[in-house]
Amino acid sequence: MTDILLESPIADDFAGWQAEGVSPFFPTVGSHAGNRVRMNSRDGVLMFGSCDYLGLSQHPAVAEASIRAIRQFGTNTYGAQALCGRTVLHEGVEEHLARLHAKDAALLFPSGMSANLAVLTSLAGPEDTVINDRLNHISIFMGARLSGAKIRTYQHNDMRRLEAILSSSTDKRRRIIVTDGLFSADGDLAPLDEIIVLAQRYDAMVVVDEAHSFGCLGPRGLGAADHHGALDKVDVIVGTMSKAVGSTGGFVVTNNQIHLALRTTAPSYTSSRGASPAVAGAALKALEIIEHDGLALRTRLGENVEYISSGLRSEGIDLANTSSQILPVMIGSEDTTIRVAHRLIEYGVFTAAFTFPNVPKGQARLRVGVTATHTPAECDELIDKLLLVRKEYPF
Amino acid sequence: MTDILLESPIADDFAGWQAEGVSPFFPTVGSHAGNRVRMNSRDGVLMFGSCDYLGLSQHPAVAEASIRAIRQFGTNTYGAQALCGRTVLHEGVEEHLARLHAKDAALLFPSGMSANLAVLTSLAGPEDTVINDRLNHISIFMGARLSGAKIRTYQHNDMRRLEAILSSSTDKRRRIIVTDGLFSADGDLAPLDEIIVLAQRYDAMVVVDEAHSFGCLGPRGLGAADHHGALDKVDVIVGTMSKAVGSTGGFVVTNNQIHLALRTTAPSYTSSRGASPAVAGAALKALEIIEHDGLALRTRLGENVEYISSGLRSEGIDLANTSSQILPVMIGSEDTTIRVAHRLIEYGVFTAAFTFPNVPKGQARLRVGVTATHTPAECDELIDKLLLVRKEYPF
Repeated sequence: MTDILLESPIADDFAGWQAEGVSPFFPTVGSHAGNRVRMNSRDGVLMFGSCDYLGLSQHPAVAEASIRAIRQFGTNTYGAQALCGRTVLHEGVEEHLARLHAKDAALLFPSGMSANLAVLTSLAGPEDTVINDRLNHISIFMGARLSGAKIRTYQHNDMRRLEAILSSSTDKRRRIIVTDGLFSADGDLAPLDEIIVLAQRYDAMVVVDEAHSFGCLGPRGLGAADHHGALDKVDVIVGTMSKAVGSTGGFVVTNNQIHLALRTTAPSYTSSRGASPAVAGAALKALEIIEHDGLALRTRLGENVEYISSGLRSEGIDLANTSSQILPVMIGSEDTTIRVAHRLIEYGVFTAAFTFPNVPKGQARLRVGVTATHTPAECDELIDKLLLVRKEYPF
Repeated sequence: MTDILLESPIADDFAGWQAEGVSPFFPTVGSHAGNRVRMNSRDGVLMFGSCDYLGLSQHPAVAEASIRAIRQFGTNTYGAQALCGRTVLHEGVEEHLARLHAKDAALLFPSGMSANLAVLTSLAGPEDTVINDRLNHISIFMGARLSGAKIRTYQHNDMRRLEAILSSSTDKRRRIIVTDGLFSADGDLAPLDEIIVLAQRYDAMVVVDEAHSFGCLGPRGLGAADHHGALDKVDVIVGTMSKAVGSTGGFVVTNNQIHLALRTTAPSYTSSRGASPAVAGAALKALEIIEHDGLALRTRLGENVEYISSGLRSEGIDLANTSSQILPVMIGSEDTTIRVAHRLIEYGVFTAAFTFPNVPKGQARLRVGVTATHTPAECDELIDKLLLVRKEYPF
């Protein structure tokens, strides 16, 4: 059955763009140097499709810590974290995260996706309802489906609908509200303050995925819950180290009881290898930098966001409702978005094309990822090139 | 709802062993040096719970390649692999894997689990049947569940039962047989030759997870399919780089059509960060070593396996049906297994305690992982200490 036909309109779209020579996807990156990358044999492409919001993946001290970890441990641990794969570096990251959040404990995962799978499969079962914002990360929906719970979904940030679902779910053992803190394709925030009021009214748990907000948002840079002063009212915080932390892997910060359940029963923890020493070592150093220098980095990030977003908006470019370092340049048509992204690379600027199914059909966009390390000249270059391409492909 | 009770007998067991001071789980590892680790402040613990079967996580050339990758790229890529996260190192690993297997293409994942999720959710849907060996890795069951396919399970390696399931599934669009190549807790092989005959008879696809066999088994070290000379008859090969390759992450090797579907539609690929540069750099060097020096490493591994298994079996220790570097020291009782593993650590030898639910209730065991780099003296030390502990805790 090797010549089986896989019917996939999405794969067909990708193959079509590739054949036409306009696909911006799957570029090969030859090297990184600050905000410039070598991409498909083109040197010096300016990176504006990044999730490395604080520039820490390029920080010399983070690189040196990662190299030290390899010299101390080699290139991998010897087994699952529960058995023999948890080093002092992993322990250090977990202790640091728990202390920062003033929570009982933290747990590291190989990815943010595996963290979400663990949380949902551990907290929810067929007797429960998992209530999702429609724009939550897909790994949350995957975890909810694996849990066997009833899945209810509300339109993006629609608190009236959330309350209606809560009030019709009081017969369930648990109601678990899950929301991204900062939405990855739109750049707007969840109304966490309102969600918490509703959760208390209807005796629901709250899980917040701070993948794109950790390091960037809130007075201490811990994310949306920190921004709302609500860390103590959130039951579970999920995060990743692959964005602002400049390393890879995911984490969960929570109370002792949930922590114990996750680390002893969640297959995406117990049956998957943890971070390599290099990854944990980089994360530990990056967390120290975020704690001590984070405010300065976030201030620079905010200035860059303000500069670019006001520059683009003054030219009539639609950035939807973003209030963060994620700037969605709304285009609409998938085909136009692909062509704009491709031409931008030819002009030496990379932005991430987001098309269906990562965003709803007809809401395709460029996802501009601003970082703390972009210089004013680099911000200008983005704006200039984007306006240039818009003349060719109006949007 | 923060003080919610999570009912979990498994978590209770872990907490109980911890409170009693006999838990061998969650040790903190302070450093690695060859086959010795610093564990819970105890120096020089001999590692026999490892999946680093060829010793490559401790290979100087692999470490140097990983360090070079950090110097070239920093500690992470800038985004998803489809967008800007695929470097020349990732490309190199994929090309190497595809060439070794003589298949169209390979694709890297952040973990073996994410690779299995991608394969199952891309190949299977509600119109299909996924047919699993009961002892397959849990990520295969998770992927099958997410796919919405009908899931059928046969007793371990029971080919009569597999044929019965196939013959009663002919009304389905696809029949997808999934099996571990080498079973992770038992160390025995799947009868891939028989599975392939049945797959051809009933027009079924074959997916083999070579997590524990890649690098270790077959004339070219590619795993169970290589061992059976059946690489061309297997539709999809899944593997990990966290065992014999000495790095982390997973991979899929397959034909162009499935490869396109995976990289454009599978959420565990498209919506999860790929390997860090350090991880990809280590893997690339390790694959070169496996290609050029693998035969010598596998020969040494085989000698160590033969030495230890005959030594233990001659003392009446039950190693079940293993025929590989995974030696299950069958004990039965969960409590005895925990105590034996704990006392072995006190004697300076680490083995991995496998208890329910990772193995069936009452079939608890120590999982001894032999590597190519264990010396004869280290093999003797394992045997001696195990026999010593058996006097104290008979099994």
